[in-house]
Amino acid sequence: MTKVFSSTNKAYLAGLLDGDGSIYVKAKPNPTYRYGFQIAPYIVFFQSNKNRKNFELIFSFLNLGIMRERKDGILEYTVNRKKSIIKLIESIKPFLILKRKQADLLIKILKKKEKVKNQKDFENLLKLIDIFRELNYSKKRKSYITP
Amino acid sequence: MTKVFSSTNKAYLAGLLDGDGSIYVKAKPNPTYRYGFQIAPYIVFFQSNKNRKNFELIFSFLNLGIMRERKDGILEYTVNRKKSIIKLIESIKPFLILKRKQADLLIKILKKKEKVKNQKDFENLLKLIDIFRELNYSKKRKSYITP
Repeated sequence: MTKVFSSTNKAYLAGLLDGDGSIYVKAKPNPTYRYGFQIAPYIVFFQSNKNRKNFELIFSFLNLGIMRERKDGILEYTVNRKKSIIKLIESIKPFLILKRKQADLLIKILKKKEKVKNQKDFENLLKLIDIFRELNYSKKRKSYITP
Repeated sequence: MTKVFSSTNKAYLAGLLDGDGSIYVKAKPNPTYRYGFQIAPYIVFFQSNKNRKNFELIFSFLNLGIMRERKDGILEYTVNRKKSIIKLIESIKPFLILKRKQADLLIKILKKKEKVKNQKDFENLLKLIDIFRELNYSKKRKSYITP
């Protein structure tokens, strides 16, 4: 993507993500995972299906995620593989303004996740995810970690 | 603005507007106007007030509109003067993708409005505004013109 995309393409995507996109990470309880949670990161762009043609055009060049249509007619372009998320964030971060903190923190979480070796490391990771939730939904904060 | 803003600034703004902005024009019934309607064009950018600092930063450079906070905590940056709208659209249009049709049609309406000389001209202008409403809200169309 970095080869194909110009600076203005990247700046446009940064604006689109700042406007109506979402950067988040979920710790989903799942007993089949070693520490009881699946860490699932996401970057999602939304759009009404009225704009399907142009919305698909934007992301046909990106080729880092998956397009799906929700039942309510909203299109979602979701990037959720680790490599793709890092690639996307590295490309657009110089131009991100409103969601720059989330982008930085998500990269930090993905790197920290690689290095988890024990329960304590994992709990520190969950604390970072807590901070993330605070950035996105300051009023609805619900901690994964009991104080 | 065109002097200060770089191409990536303009592309970012185009992305922001495509993502969560709005371009529209209202024909407001108003008997004090010659043809019974006030034609009111708008370009609006929205954002949660959690991002106030950065959102204000973006638009402090733009200096074409007015920032206000709604009762529900959403910030709105509104550009509604004709000259400012034309300036903004001319700057970002090369990068607009999802709202390009609206941008083109709004410019057409503003130019046509200048040339209105009689009731028939005005009715043609209202027809263009009808097309605009159709672009933005295809399912809720309500015509100003009775068939």
